[in-house]
Amino acid sequence: MVIIMKPEASAQNIKGVIEVIQNAGLTAKVTEGVQQQIVAVIGDKSKVSSVPFDAMPGVDHSVAISKSYKLASRESHPMDSVVDVDGIEIGGGNFVVMAGPCAVESREQLMEAAEIAKKGGAQFLRGGAYKPRTSPYSFQGLEEEGLKYLAEAKEKTGLRIVTEVTQVESVEIVAKYSDLMQVGARNMQNFSLLKEVGRANKPVMLKRGLAATLDEWLNAAEYILSEGNDKVILCERGIRSYETYTRNTLDLAAVAAVKHLSHLPIIVDPSHGTGKWRLVKPMALAAVAAGADGIIMEMHPNPAKALSDGAQSLTPEHYYDLMRDVNKLAKFMRDEDIKSIDLEG
Amino acid sequence: MVIIMKPEASAQNIKGVIEVIQNAGLTAKVTEGVQQQIVAVIGDKSKVSSVPFDAMPGVDHSVAISKSYKLASRESHPMDSVVDVDGIEIGGGNFVVMAGPCAVESREQLMEAAEIAKKGGAQFLRGGAYKPRTSPYSFQGLEEEGLKYLAEAKEKTGLRIVTEVTQVESVEIVAKYSDLMQVGARNMQNFSLLKEVGRANKPVMLKRGLAATLDEWLNAAEYILSEGNDKVILCERGIRSYETYTRNTLDLAAVAAVKHLSHLPIIVDPSHGTGKWRLVKPMALAAVAAGADGIIMEMHPNPAKALSDGAQSLTPEHYYDLMRDVNKLAKFMRDEDIKSIDLEG
Amino acid sequence: MVIIMKPEASAQNIKGVIEVIQNAGLTAKVTEGVQQQIVAVIGDKSKVSSVPFDAMPGVDHSVAISKSYKLASRESHPMDSVVDVDGIEIGGGNFVVMAGPCAVESREQLMEAAEIAKKGGAQFLRGGAYKPRTSPYSFQGLEEEGLKYLAEAKEKTGLRIVTEVTQVESVEIVAKYSDLMQVGARNMQNFSLLKEVGRANKPVMLKRGLAATLDEWLNAAEYILSEGNDKVILCERGIRSYETYTRNTLDLAAVAAVKHLSHLPIIVDPSHGTGKWRLVKPMALAAVAAGADGIIMEMHPNPAKALSDGAQSLTPEHYYDLMRDVNKLAKFMRDEDIKSIDLEG
Amino acid sequence: MVIIMKPEASAQNIKGVIEVIQNAGLTAKVTEGVQQQIVAVIGDKSKVSSVPFDAMPGVDHSVAISKSYKLASRESHPMDSVVDVDGIEIGGGNFVVMAGPCAVESREQLMEAAEIAKKGGAQFLRGGAYKPRTSPYSFQGLEEEGLKYLAEAKEKTGLRIVTEVTQVESVEIVAKYSDLMQVGARNMQNFSLLKEVGRANKPVMLKRGLAATLDEWLNAAEYILSEGNDKVILCERGIRSYETYTRNTLDLAAVAAVKHLSHLPIIVDPSHGTGKWRLVKPMALAAVAAGADGIIMEMHPNPAKALSDGAQSLTPEHYYDLMRDVNKLAKFMRDEDIKSIDLEG
Repeated sequence: MVIIMKPEASAQNIKGVIEVIQNAGLTAKVTEGVQQQIVAVIGDKSKVSSVPFDAMPGVDHSVAISKSYKLASRESHPMDSVVDVDGIEIGGGNFVVMAGPCAVESREQLMEAAEIAKKGGAQFLRGGAYKPRTSPYSFQGLEEEGLKYLAEAKEKTGLRIVTEVTQVESVEIVAKYSDLMQVGARNMQNFSLLKEVGRANKPVMLKRGLAATLDEWLNAAEYILSEGNDKVILCERGIRSYETYTRNTLDLAAVAAVKHLSHLPIIVDPSHGTGKWRLVKPMALAAVAAGADGIIMEMHPNPAKALSDGAQSLTPEHYYDLMRDVNKLAKFMRDEDIKSIDLEG
Repeated sequence: MVIIMKPEASAQNIKGVIEVIQNAGLTAKVTEGVQQQIVAVIGDKSKVSSVPFDAMPGVDHSVAISKSYKLASRESHPMDSVVDVDGIEIGGGNFVVMAGPCAVESREQLMEAAEIAKKGGAQFLRGGAYKPRTSPYSFQGLEEEGLKYLAEAKEKTGLRIVTEVTQVESVEIVAKYSDLMQVGARNMQNFSLLKEVGRANKPVMLKRGLAATLDEWLNAAEYILSEGNDKVILCERGIRSYETYTRNTLDLAAVAAVKHLSHLPIIVDPSHGTGKWRLVKPMALAAVAAGADGIIMEMHPNPAKALSDGAQSLTPEHYYDLMRDVNKLAKFMRDEDIKSIDLEG
Repeated sequence: MVIIMKPEASAQNIKGVIEVIQNAGLTAKVTEGVQQQIVAVIGDKSKVSSVPFDAMPGVDHSVAISKSYKLASRESHPMDSVVDVDGIEIGGGNFVVMAGPCAVESREQLMEAAEIAKKGGAQFLRGGAYKPRTSPYSFQGLEEEGLKYLAEAKEKTGLRIVTEVTQVESVEIVAKYSDLMQVGARNMQNFSLLKEVGRANKPVMLKRGLAATLDEWLNAAEYILSEGNDKVILCERGIRSYETYTRNTLDLAAVAAVKHLSHLPIIVDPSHGTGKWRLVKPMALAAVAAGADGIIMEMHPNPAKALSDGAQSLTPEHYYDLMRDVNKLAKFMRDEDIKSIDLEG
Repeated sequence: MVIIMKPEASAQNIKGVIEVIQNAGLTAKVTEGVQQQIVAVIGDKSKVSSVPFDAMPGVDHSVAISKSYKLASRESHPMDSVVDVDGIEIGGGNFVVMAGPCAVESREQLMEAAEIAKKGGAQFLRGGAYKPRTSPYSFQGLEEEGLKYLAEAKEKTGLRIVTEVTQVESVEIVAKYSDLMQVGARNMQNFSLLKEVGRANKPVMLKRGLAATLDEWLNAAEYILSEGNDKVILCERGIRSYETYTRNTLDLAAVAAVKHLSHLPIIVDPSHGTGKWRLVKPMALAAVAAGADGIIMEMHPNPAKALSDGAQSLTPEHYYDLMRDVNKLAKFMRDEDIKSIDLEG
């Protein structure tokens, strides 16, 4: 941490800052500038992380120079993490596809979707049993019944199951019926839920919050990691910007940025990321090219009858078409050894 | 709901849309435009709220024309709601002040803060016992111990207590020790928590999410209201924008907008709304002028030693100065009958 | 400027950074941290402002610690600037009102608007003769004819004239017919135009860009000031955020922030800032309370017939009502010596 | 256009709305809803585009249902436009690369950059002679001297020249020395400049504004097209969001969205789009996969000595590496007939 003093700061002001640093058992180094002085904090900055230097007399502002997350950082774990989800590896060069309806609506709908997902070549079936909805009057999901259908679909198709957990009290049951628990965007800073999935012995996919910075997202991952669960996968699903043509603004640069900042695998959700099915394929292909470890997308046997998110769901035909090209592209990138991310660079 | 067809939509396409509407028991009215046709849905639109018209063949896009929240809407309750919090009325022309430290740090700190808050003229003492923090390594609050100090401070000073509840399993205990439960910005769409406080018989202050639209915010309030708890107060605390000079962008127009859209009282938080104590007073005064029902702000006996949010906390002297002017202004607005909001207009 | 090295940076890397600094005639000071080293640049940082330290080997990132604008900064001019606009002072405790239609539409419309503006107590008449419009097919203004009507309206009413200049080649003529030239939000970084108005001997009101930071805005003002024109007034008119209920998000905290960062007067535009006439009055009152030096707003003799921006224009009656209360409030703030901004604090 | 009346609107209110529509020579169709009435405007909506229906008594709000741009729309020109730039085709399946320094700094620097650009396989050399800079004290470009060096570089290498024009008075000279004139993000709504390049007989590349919606961007293109210049190319260069890790948020979904909305070619700028050279390659590859017609990027013989934008400039080695993979990928997409955008869908 570096504290920048005001040009008019008094010696007394600087002394005050130094004392706070020293009282925390750290060392303060002062650099005399032409216009203003700078005080650098030497040592474990977490000891002064809550000191409001900016509010102290004579201080212009302070700048944090090291990251607040540790276990999630690339520095702490220079090699890519690979998360094993019931035998399927995510990360480390493997490209996975998760597909299925937004919500589990009925046994029939889910079994049909599972067959289509399987036929197209996905490794995972997605489908929400607990649905976080903006309005209390919208369909909220089939809950445990939905989870059972997901487990049944796995039995039939062999597809791994990824599904959302929305509350602490459901972590146990969701962990029981699924292979990969998803923490949704709206819960990215639901710290109780993060701690609870951190205590579960199950892989977790953490979606980026609607307006979360990379730093906040990696700190949210740190909550899970610091409870002892190191099977964390990130998922970029679009952020909120002023643009309203798309439902969200898919931040694909975040994929590459996360690869530099962290060792965790990262999946892209082009369905929520755009909100329009016509944009799902180009963004799925772009995600492959950008170096993502996989994609998750919404596909519905009959989008026009979907109970939620129909506008962004692919029909089976569009899904098959997308899969053909995404798989071709992923194979090409691998075969030709095209490296989107250069950690040496 | 209005569905706008593409210029090239076929008669078959239009028939498809009409059928979906009729199958839901509603009426479809087609208007022939010069370039394109428009289909209006007549009847209870919630029956087709999940139909993805945008994904249907021949459809350009659809537009929702009525609001999804009902109990929170001004239409459902034309008069301002007034929420009684242990004898203090919020809303209906009364202006309240809530002040205190970001976090309860110790018995001594809280009692000192309570005395200052009282002396300055606040009606409520604020202070967090459960702290949602970006990093798992930051101070997380004193939890139940903190709640007990708050209750003790009420006993000593008579100030009502407002404090945050961050998880379903703490609703009961927070309700026991406080007068007004706060749902924080990060939990605005933690729907389990919203339902749980909706089942409690205790006033709730719902902060606006970091990137929540007015519509999402009022729908979040609807979650609480629809569980039977009508003692809901909103709190504007700044939204996330591209500007980084301030911690958030305080959206004061939201105060007036909410008064038009809803009957619920609304409080402004200029501390989180700006993140800089120097901007708290001008924004507190502006909140009064804009027609807010009160303000909540951070004040600390010694901000430079605060364990969190020190940079935006007022010192006691700045707090007294602010209170003098805020109260003068609130009185002037009332005495002179200056109406910021004109519901007739 | 402070350059933060990576933990793994080599001695060679640090030497490289130091050399660049020394080659520019400046001094480099190295501080050894526990994890990483920090290099501070001592001297006139503008000499290395374009050096891409972030791209140099071993560098993690760099942080600018001093502001790039000088003449616009409070440090360079500790007292508030007061700009004299043909005898009317803006800044320094005086509160001014500018009112009138979005666009000059006809001689009749403008004269009528001028009479209303005058009667309500405004000091300035606003009205656009050159209209920057999103679509090339929208009404683009009456140009010189409009300017002549404005000058005529001044003659009749004595109101000072504020009107927008949108291009270098119109600066001369706009300066001739008006008292205060407005540079609009879309042109805030039209640097040729900024330089041209900087060479004119006429007061300039610089609106904040749609997505401009405070730093960019003050740098835009610096362009005008550095050409020798010190009669610069800022105007906050709302910024672009994700919220769509309002046309823009009025950033009233910017008023107080600008007062700390700069000595320039600042005006608030609640009409563009909200886009809805119902929100204009509460935001006008809030602007007074926040410490603004004035407001500019759209008023039309008959908003329902306006050629542009009718939705945010006040009717004459709403305008009179607003003026009564805004003036009362401004007088109260002055009489009671309520200081929103405390530069000592 | 559809006008939604309030539930409590009177027959008089509806009559008022209908009259305004009929007075403009258009037809009004009223649809009776259960809660509220809707008035649809039939005919050429541009005749009522400036009527502020939202401000009329009894009106809740109005919704535009057709686009305001025409020449730029896909409807007006169903086939992809192909722009010939001195023999190089942009659009229609051809993938082009533009590379070079941010600014022309000296004859030597530019010739060196041109040789590198050529050797790597780019078709265009970029380089700014007129630099729009946030601060008036930053390097502003070599102006005409810079243009001459660009022309000389073309002569030597055969590369086509793309360079920015920042003001009306420079359009002629920039058109003389270059092949493709760029209108930068800060000037996207500098309507005088748009009209001037619209009157030039030279291809124009229009960058998206920092906070421009797709609709505003296409309307800006419409300004150029409507003056008679149909050689318009769009360039996505990142938008401003709350995320600060990257300089901008590259909106790759805009590439696919623009392909649906418009027939104009679209280029991606991963350098400004991310602000970090490490993210340029993954975003360049992603742009290819998303269906862009080309990329423009910053490359400098020695980024650490660049006078501007060094942090986002590629070194020659990184540039060669990127070109190898980008070209491989573009060839693969073409050979395998992978269609990111499906206009039929």
